[in-house]
Amino acid sequence: MGIDPGLTRCGLSVVQAGRGRSVLPIAVGVVRTPASDSLTSRLLRLSNAVEEWMDEYRPDVVALERVFERSNVSTVMNTAHASGVLMLAAAKRGLDVHMYTPSEVKKAITGNGRADKPQMTTMVTRILGLGEPPKPADAADALALAVCHCWRAPLNHVVKGQS
Amino acid sequence: MGIDPGLTRCGLSVVQAGRGRSVLPIAVGVVRTPASDSLTSRLLRLSNAVEEWMDEYRPDVVALERVFERSNVSTVMNTAHASGVLMLAAAKRGLDVHMYTPSEVKKAITGNGRADKPQMTTMVTRILGLGEPPKPADAADALALAVCHCWRAPLNHVVKGQS
Repeated sequence: MGIDPGLTRCGLSVVQAGRGRSVLPIAVGVVRTPASDSLTSRLLRLSNAVEEWMDEYRPDVVALERVFERSNVSTVMNTAHASGVLMLAAAKRGLDVHMYTPSEVKKAITGNGRADKPQMTTMVTRILGLGEPPKPADAADALALAVCHCWRAPLNHVVKGQS
Repeated sequence: MGIDPGLTRCGLSVVQAGRGRSVLPIAVGVVRTPASDSLTSRLLRLSNAVEEWMDEYRPDVVALERVFERSNVSTVMNTAHASGVLMLAAAKRGLDVHMYTPSEVKKAITGNGRADKPQMTTMVTRILGLGEPPKPADAADALALAVCHCWRAPLNHVVKGQS
């Protein structure tokens, strides 16, 4: 399961790793929480949504984008709060969570750590054999994270979850 | 309930607001999670501990310190992840969460937004009529947050929780 964390939009994806570098898409979606709601109720909505996904798809492992200080402080903090809730959902199920920076994901998918969004979307669409590019960007990012983990997992130091 | 969020140490307190400015201490403690554990399992431990507190003391409202970029990025991020988990626990119980910055708490308790730790501890000990100063600092901070909320609540814009 790949997760692009966020409070306004959180990208969720599930893929199945095949032989070699083949990866099959299973599901992709975006959870939105209204900015007009309180922070606490937005976190609860996000938590409920990701728990439903985890219960439905029963992933073996979670790949999560590491929060970076790339935008304004308030957005970073909301994303960090959201990540805490997402990691908790994984921990409750004993799932390992692997964190990747945006540039690690870009490098894994395109070979270039500074690839732009169109490049990333093109490669994700091609790798997964999708009929059309995933939208919005958060959905494509969630898929890219999942693919990145499938390809990099054998090399990873595992961040062990605990049930 | 006052909470000084943190992953290594999280201060928890429960107080009862009385008439005027009187505030009675009910409970205070610190939850620690080992730095040797994974981030996910630390978040799970913290979540379980705060849920136990909430179930035991059934608070009416939560006062939480707002995460500030005061120390290194990694500490701030861990604290922000922890805050997400703490807010989720409140949201699941329909509790309102009020956020206060460190300087708002200092100003409420001592009249000085830049009060040092000994000043804060002295005032918290006096306000709550404690036999000895609360330790460690996270416990005193959690009590200060709870007192701050009791005194400031009538003036607050409520951040509404949702069950």
